[in-house]
Amino acid sequence: MDYVQSVLQEIKPIDEHYLNRVQLHIDTLTMPQGSLGRLIELGKRYAAIKRTLQPRIEKKKIIIFAADHGVAQEGVSAYPREVTKQMVVNFLQGGAGINVLARHVGAEVGVVDIGVDCDFSDSAGLIKKKVARGTRNMAQEHAMTRRQAHKALQTGIELAREAAQSGIDLIGTGEMGIGNTTPSSAIVAAFTGLPPCRVTGRGTGVDDKGLQIKTEIIEKALLRHKPDKNDPMDVLVKVGGFEIAAIAGLVIGAAAENVPVVIDGFISTAGALVAYEMNNTVADYLFASHQSVEKGHRVTLDRMGLQPLLDLDLRLGEGTGAALAVSLVEAGVKLITEMATFEEAGVSESRQE
Amino acid sequence: MDYVQSVLQEIKPIDEHYLNRVQLHIDTLTMPQGSLGRLIELGKRYAAIKRTLQPRIEKKKIIIFAADHGVAQEGVSAYPREVTKQMVVNFLQGGAGINVLARHVGAEVGVVDIGVDCDFSDSAGLIKKKVARGTRNMAQEHAMTRRQAHKALQTGIELAREAAQSGIDLIGTGEMGIGNTTPSSAIVAAFTGLPPCRVTGRGTGVDDKGLQIKTEIIEKALLRHKPDKNDPMDVLVKVGGFEIAAIAGLVIGAAAENVPVVIDGFISTAGALVAYEMNNTVADYLFASHQSVEKGHRVTLDRMGLQPLLDLDLRLGEGTGAALAVSLVEAGVKLITEMATFEEAGVSESRQE
Repeated sequence: MDYVQSVLQEIKPIDEHYLNRVQLHIDTLTMPQGSLGRLIELGKRYAAIKRTLQPRIEKKKIIIFAADHGVAQEGVSAYPREVTKQMVVNFLQGGAGINVLARHVGAEVGVVDIGVDCDFSDSAGLIKKKVARGTRNMAQEHAMTRRQAHKALQTGIELAREAAQSGIDLIGTGEMGIGNTTPSSAIVAAFTGLPPCRVTGRGTGVDDKGLQIKTEIIEKALLRHKPDKNDPMDVLVKVGGFEIAAIAGLVIGAAAENVPVVIDGFISTAGALVAYEMNNTVADYLFASHQSVEKGHRVTLDRMGLQPLLDLDLRLGEGTGAALAVSLVEAGVKLITEMATFEEAGVSESRQE
Repeated sequence: MDYVQSVLQEIKPIDEHYLNRVQLHIDTLTMPQGSLGRLIELGKRYAAIKRTLQPRIEKKKIIIFAADHGVAQEGVSAYPREVTKQMVVNFLQGGAGINVLARHVGAEVGVVDIGVDCDFSDSAGLIKKKVARGTRNMAQEHAMTRRQAHKALQTGIELAREAAQSGIDLIGTGEMGIGNTTPSSAIVAAFTGLPPCRVTGRGTGVDDKGLQIKTEIIEKALLRHKPDKNDPMDVLVKVGGFEIAAIAGLVIGAAAENVPVVIDGFISTAGALVAYEMNNTVADYLFASHQSVEKGHRVTLDRMGLQPLLDLDLRLGEGTGAALAVSLVEAGVKLITEMATFEEAGVSESRQE
């Protein structure tokens, strides 16, 4: 049994009994039953995962995986390939959208080079885990080898384990990679069987012609390589991306370590889907941050039974949606631990319950 | 001209020219155009209101108005009347949902007795502005006198002015009042002309019979008193509530002082609607925090052209939704001021724009 398989087997489903126990506590808090809707459900699930009525979220971390994509040479993105490395530098300098939002919600940011087409100097803070300088072009060949897919997955798992060991209470996913909505749509099409036109959007903003090219590239890659949806590694190898594989690994590792994960937008969700197809139980540990503008996002969330928290027309990625939702999960947790009970506060209960 | 009228005339519409100027700045930030969707629009509007490209939100305050309602004796709520005063004490002790969420987002909480049926001792922190010990029962008589409506409005205006003078950058609305979805639905029905059954929901959780009673009470009150929708004071007098009138005043005062306001749920939105009917320009200063479960909420937001930021099945009130949205507005503002530009970060721009 390989490393990834062994970690997949460590993952335990959420304890339904403990969910009920948390609900009994929630019912004592000074508010009408159910009046904090999905917000308190976040705290409830977090508490049940941690098996405590006193959960705390103190350390939060957004982990951004950056990689390049061979398929970018087909003109599937509105931006040139070098933007991947430029944005990595921007992340490290603290000037990107994700840096602003992570600071706002009090989360650390970790930036991982999992496959950028560039040799970075020993930049302060960059986590160097390069598998290769970008994937190969799925339009012509397999995006990566099985060994590479395994290495990217393993890196994600190991980073989740390190985060858990350093006391991170909640992980958010992030990514950067010019062209990476193309492998994401290909992965979603491969697992769902939906035609690529149903799950392919404009990414960073391609025009109609760009969208048509992108959709056709995905159609051809799927026809040519015939990824086996029952073998998620095969899907990664044929149409994946290194950052997507690493996010899948991060989700698997975090679930095995009992650390909940907030999933960012479409690309992160495609990564989570790969993990889900390996072991459906990972969904118990996932919070879907937002409904992206990207076309294939909703069907991907639906497949995992996840409901997005925010719907703000975001489509930046980087972990920006995850950062906002990290704050919502934290709010849900605080409500459970900090609200007074009817008894403590001397408040009368409902006459109708 | 009376005091409220004079303040209404101070309100200036948002500067469209400045909105364009902020957009030009946003277009230089390191992200694809429009990729932060509605989030950055929050910062854009805030910056335009403040007429600066360097807006800052440092001090935030949720102002909660509490009052009782004569109509509560008709059995329109699932909770006994004394819960209003009990929850005021809970707010002051920091144990309610709004306290938890306000702490989470770094906002102060101000608690105002605008009409609770109770004589509070000199509790630390309670802002004593009682108009009367609750409204009268709209099922039988006018809820309040014109003088009382004016006093509640004026109190809201004065508190907004005080907040502005003490450097509050963003105000959130909140309320507490057993029975207060009933006057809120009555107000919305009065202004929109919609039948009460279309805008009346379960509030804190009345059962089917309770909902029927509530709807009939509103129908009868509107038939009996015939509030004049062209005279918002008349609507307040006949079917209003003191906290709703005070929220209307808060919105008017904040708009006059150029301080944006985040509106909480259904009751707060009914208060904002009263202000809107007095001067539509107040809408330029409003951010709608969330889509409440309460039935009449959406139509009320639509009437003011406001789109809710969150949809988390909340129906607690208190300002809980406003607190969460305050954090989103703050995030939007920080994105505008803290993100690097393409030039600063050395990031290549799109080939297609």
